[in-house]
Amino acid sequence: MKMNGIRSLILVVWMGSLSFMHQSAMAQEKLHLPTLEDLIPGGETYRFTENLYGLQWWGDLCIRPEIEKVSAIDPRTGKAVELFTLEKINQALAQAGVRPLRSCQSLRTPWPKQFIAQLPAAYGFARYHWDTGKVEVRDDMPKEPAANYDYELTQHHLAYTVGNNLYVNGIRITNEPEGVLCGQSVHRNEFGISKGTFWSPNGNLLAFYRMDERMVTEYPLVDITARVGKVNNIRYPMAGMTSHKVEIGIYNPQTGKSLFLQTGDPTDRYFTNISWSPDEQFLFLIELNRDQNHAKLCQYDAATGTLVQVLYEEKHEKYVEPSYPITFLPWDSNCFIYQSEEDGYNHLYLFDLNKLKSGEGNAARTQLTRGEWMVQDLLGFNKAKKEIIFAATKESPLQSNIYKVSVKNGLITRLDNGLGVHRARLSASGTFLIDNYNTPEQPRCIELTPVDGGKKQSLLTAADPYEGFDMPTIETGTLKAADGQTDLYYRIVKPANFDPNKKYPAIVYVYGGPHAQLVTNEWRNGARGWDLYMANRGYILFSIDNRGSDNRGLEFENSTFRRLGVEECKDQVKGAQFLQSLPYVDANRIGVHGWSFGGHMTTALLLRYPDLFKVGVAGGPVIDWGYYEVMYGERYMDTPQSNPEGYKETNLKNLAGNLKGHLLIIHDDHDDTCVPQHTLSFMKACIDARTYPDLFIYPGHKHNVMGRDRVHLHEKITRYFEDNL
Amino acid sequence: MKMNGIRSLILVVWMGSLSFMHQSAMAQEKLHLPTLEDLIPGGETYRFTENLYGLQWWGDLCIRPEIEKVSAIDPRTGKAVELFTLEKINQALAQAGVRPLRSCQSLRTPWPKQFIAQLPAAYGFARYHWDTGKVEVRDDMPKEPAANYDYELTQHHLAYTVGNNLYVNGIRITNEPEGVLCGQSVHRNEFGISKGTFWSPNGNLLAFYRMDERMVTEYPLVDITARVGKVNNIRYPMAGMTSHKVEIGIYNPQTGKSLFLQTGDPTDRYFTNISWSPDEQFLFLIELNRDQNHAKLCQYDAATGTLVQVLYEEKHEKYVEPSYPITFLPWDSNCFIYQSEEDGYNHLYLFDLNKLKSGEGNAARTQLTRGEWMVQDLLGFNKAKKEIIFAATKESPLQSNIYKVSVKNGLITRLDNGLGVHRARLSASGTFLIDNYNTPEQPRCIELTPVDGGKKQSLLTAADPYEGFDMPTIETGTLKAADGQTDLYYRIVKPANFDPNKKYPAIVYVYGGPHAQLVTNEWRNGARGWDLYMANRGYILFSIDNRGSDNRGLEFENSTFRRLGVEECKDQVKGAQFLQSLPYVDANRIGVHGWSFGGHMTTALLLRYPDLFKVGVAGGPVIDWGYYEVMYGERYMDTPQSNPEGYKETNLKNLAGNLKGHLLIIHDDHDDTCVPQHTLSFMKACIDARTYPDLFIYPGHKHNVMGRDRVHLHEKITRYFEDNL
Repeated sequence: MKMNGIRSLILVVWMGSLSFMHQSAMAQEKLHLPTLEDLIPGGETYRFTENLYGLQWWGDLCIRPEIEKVSAIDPRTGKAVELFTLEKINQALAQAGVRPLRSCQSLRTPWPKQFIAQLPAAYGFARYHWDTGKVEVRDDMPKEPAANYDYELTQHHLAYTVGNNLYVNGIRITNEPEGVLCGQSVHRNEFGISKGTFWSPNGNLLAFYRMDERMVTEYPLVDITARVGKVNNIRYPMAGMTSHKVEIGIYNPQTGKSLFLQTGDPTDRYFTNISWSPDEQFLFLIELNRDQNHAKLCQYDAATGTLVQVLYEEKHEKYVEPSYPITFLPWDSNCFIYQSEEDGYNHLYLFDLNKLKSGEGNAARTQLTRGEWMVQDLLGFNKAKKEIIFAATKESPLQSNIYKVSVKNGLITRLDNGLGVHRARLSASGTFLIDNYNTPEQPRCIELTPVDGGKKQSLLTAADPYEGFDMPTIETGTLKAADGQTDLYYRIVKPANFDPNKKYPAIVYVYGGPHAQLVTNEWRNGARGWDLYMANRGYILFSIDNRGSDNRGLEFENSTFRRLGVEECKDQVKGAQFLQSLPYVDANRIGVHGWSFGGHMTTALLLRYPDLFKVGVAGGPVIDWGYYEVMYGERYMDTPQSNPEGYKETNLKNLAGNLKGHLLIIHDDHDDTCVPQHTLSFMKACIDARTYPDLFIYPGHKHNVMGRDRVHLHEKITRYFEDNL
Repeated sequence: MKMNGIRSLILVVWMGSLSFMHQSAMAQEKLHLPTLEDLIPGGETYRFTENLYGLQWWGDLCIRPEIEKVSAIDPRTGKAVELFTLEKINQALAQAGVRPLRSCQSLRTPWPKQFIAQLPAAYGFARYHWDTGKVEVRDDMPKEPAANYDYELTQHHLAYTVGNNLYVNGIRITNEPEGVLCGQSVHRNEFGISKGTFWSPNGNLLAFYRMDERMVTEYPLVDITARVGKVNNIRYPMAGMTSHKVEIGIYNPQTGKSLFLQTGDPTDRYFTNISWSPDEQFLFLIELNRDQNHAKLCQYDAATGTLVQVLYEEKHEKYVEPSYPITFLPWDSNCFIYQSEEDGYNHLYLFDLNKLKSGEGNAARTQLTRGEWMVQDLLGFNKAKKEIIFAATKESPLQSNIYKVSVKNGLITRLDNGLGVHRARLSASGTFLIDNYNTPEQPRCIELTPVDGGKKQSLLTAADPYEGFDMPTIETGTLKAADGQTDLYYRIVKPANFDPNKKYPAIVYVYGGPHAQLVTNEWRNGARGWDLYMANRGYILFSIDNRGSDNRGLEFENSTFRRLGVEECKDQVKGAQFLQSLPYVDANRIGVHGWSFGGHMTTALLLRYPDLFKVGVAGGPVIDWGYYEVMYGERYMDTPQSNPEGYKETNLKNLAGNLKGHLLIIHDDHDDTCVPQHTLSFMKACIDARTYPDLFIYPGHKHNVMGRDRVHLHEKITRYFEDNL
């Protein structure tokens, strides 16, 4: 880099205005630039950031599994003691007739003070006692291909699914026809749902979801790798259409019997955020109506399945989105934490069950955190100190930091360094954190952090995986949104050999939808490998998080209600106009790329602002919200029946005639999130309107192109911009 | 543009050889060029060549229906007499309660000497008696949507299909489950089959096909215009896989009973070319084995369904392809015409049934035509003179002319002017022809031609539909094939403002498969609208009919056996090398475009000769003959089991890694001839091989893009060449 600087200075003196070209051309020769294979996950030479895989707590001791051995680290001193080796465990496994383990990094130590390491599902959840050298093997593992394993730690129950049915300890406990699924995640993973089984705290009961999809229309995905193209049907409820029905069962392993919650007709109701009372007598859930504007926190009797009480209700004229189960305080089984966006930001509320039951209303509820920032994760409790440990955006909406709040006095204390994005795991007693964080300059640090303050023990400071390469420079800043008031965060990525006197084409990388944020204070401010690659090829890469995106609170998000994409595009236009104002950007060469919601945005920007955006590559785009699913789609758009004008305005088929620039749409033929009908019907709309988009299809992939083909995808995208921008 | 012109003039003085570019730019300003809308069928301003729609025989009088009236023309004098008007027929229809006709051009006059015009199916085949003004209406027309109407002229029986069943005179005569089709064309329209019902000469019996497809794998085509993408399954037997089974029924309308021919197990047998004996006692067909190398002319007893005799057999080490039913001489019901490629060219053979039956072998068979040319169509007979009238390539393989051969002395006489391509219809007695022909210079002429010589009456000499436009020039010639011996015909199309000193990019338009020929002595030598359009945009358009294509005889065609595309490509390379040798062609800018077999050729040429062909647009290509259907595919390729090396060599997925140039593959998502799996699996192969084809899909279209969207298609293709060649 320094050599380049000197050379260019000399050249400038001689060659006047022509020098820029030569300067960069010559500089280019000397640059050591990473390839797509280096930068894209799935690439043959992709460089993962150094990590400590499998780092975890064993009570309040930190367990560090390496490939060949497992050590325990005292978080107060940082001193490590070796517990056992791979060789030893494999000797024990051989005696027990279990195939050898290849690495200790997949072991778990969920039982504090017990000298037991648990092997993963593929090894039958065998337990290795490293004190005695014995291996405990389960004799009730499934013979058929199983999924959704849920291992219960107290009584060692094991729930899993085979096909559409649920099994516990080797016994099938449901007997459902095709189209009814038990023990799996429901409601398309919306409302914070990610699984379908919920063991009670002591393992005496198992709550599980049952989803009847038989009334849901099937969407056909065609597998062209079969000898003769073969349909894989998926049940996909589209906006406004008949949706699936969900029930909640409770299975008792001791009696072998199940009951179902007496919810009444489950039609058009969402049952979310299941949790148990500490005494296992009650099951709590949050019920949401199909319109998603009225949530009810319900308490059910686990022994009878009857509704005990609706404990709390939330309404909003746009939508409510309950995403977190309630969590009981470990020191008071009458009090629980409830998370809500009621005041505009997700915060922690303490509820007293006794007061709720006696109808004391507001007195039953104490707001524990407040402010124009949001709680992102409840990590746990320090029982002794009556503190709650959580992650939040309190420093900056671009960050995630770790805090504790005292239930006694409401005092909030930050536990980390206040920089970047932290992901932490709390030890058993709530006294230590494994703090895994990164900052714009630091790809990863791992520290053991005492919750009460005191010396942190550093376990890892990862090197820059692209050390030695010439890498782009990255800047962030804020711009005003199209509403003239709201600050939006942007990120700009410039080539390694950036020359301020040059005119660069610019590419906007966009997402723009709810629950995602592109610009953060993570490593490289969240810039992706492709952004870096394209910057080094001579583009300015730019992203801005428009209104509607994540981590900015409820109003920022719901300003897009019933018109998804419209306001978002206006904000992106502000970003593009900013790019045009930069002296080093060629105002006539602005492209845009995005996937999924970002594919919608890309397409919408080319159609709504054809003079501003010249080239777009849209991946897996939503084209017509009428083809999108009920849970996500109706939250933001209501139904086609109740919001016809909104569906019409945002249906990009209606704008197909506006296409002027080069637009490549890429879709995967097994996209079960955003079905191929979106893109194919847009092609038809363009043909009807006599406009000329381009198309590509990745066979066999789902909602994005992953694995080795991801490099091909980005080469394809790169070529499109190189050819057309 | 004019400013540039002035500038360029100054530059020319200075810059010599660069002047060509500017010269043609200036010339371009003056040209009046047709657009794609003018040139592509389906275009809004597409110019059809003038025609006389509905021209037909009524006995030996020529009927000329116009929109408002119908006249009869005496072929000897050319004099026309008005028979009736649209107004009159509509008055009669109104009285009979039939909706008014919009044009007389859809009327038929199949009954010589009877003053009856028949209306089309949509009008219930009503018969208008123009002498009495009466309308006869059928009362047995189907209420449900029907198809495959077969109107029997003697007894006025009407056969048709509703769904998969066959009806006669309003009565359902088959009762088959889904997957079994009656009364429809079978064997995917191969072996000359185009329909599924065959009335006996006097209408006393109806032979019909029954096809059981239930054992055939279904291929799923997805309709994305439905509210939720919907599968339309087609039964598509792929090479080497289980095929459908065909039987032949005979229905007697008088008894209402059917019987089936006693063929034995129909597995892997093709029953083709059905015809009746004049006395209706026997049904003839040609049976072909699945390997398609052994054909048998069989005579069945129509009353019992039993096989009377195998009259004649043909074998060939590669394949035989019977395509014409036998036809009995109208003056001798023991003699029939059989067509065969036995001597290397399709010719007429006269068989004597009596001699065949008495086992006289070769004496039973007389070759009526012979030579290195082929009979293309048997038009009929002149009973009085014992002459057979037929179309053949006797003048040139690029032509089709009309001849008669005397059965008495074998003398062949040409009946037309010996130019171009003639399509003729013979009058009832075989004494006159309606000769509709075109030549390279003449878009269409229609003449009434006496078969015995004498004065022709000209009915139409169509104007050039592109009169007034500046049109390309077209030349044809021959080149040696890659075998160094065979002459191949080519066509070259040059821009209207062709400048021999310029270097033009060239585009090869290719088909290359059996049963098609691109270079002919038709109007403009067969050049298509897009060829003309591209030539005028500054490209040299070129086509050459490689070995394997039509009208050159058996060996020319079957030289490609078991390796489809390989020899064909070598011949196309000869064409491309010829282009490169032309002083006005830029040897580095050769593109290729083709559809179906031509899509295979285009893709294969880019993969096998990546340094020669720079840009390709392949439509609906065969990529892997293993995905193609049994009848056509196995004829030329045998099965994947018996010819694994051939299937491997011609599977373009195995060459995906060779792709260097720009290749756009276009497929229709309802292509039921060449299923989308071809193209999509090729995309996957290229992704796996890390090469970068382009893709486009036309939703809702079948094996080609027709109608209004055809203009879009050609604009899409044009842009691809403009952007990349």
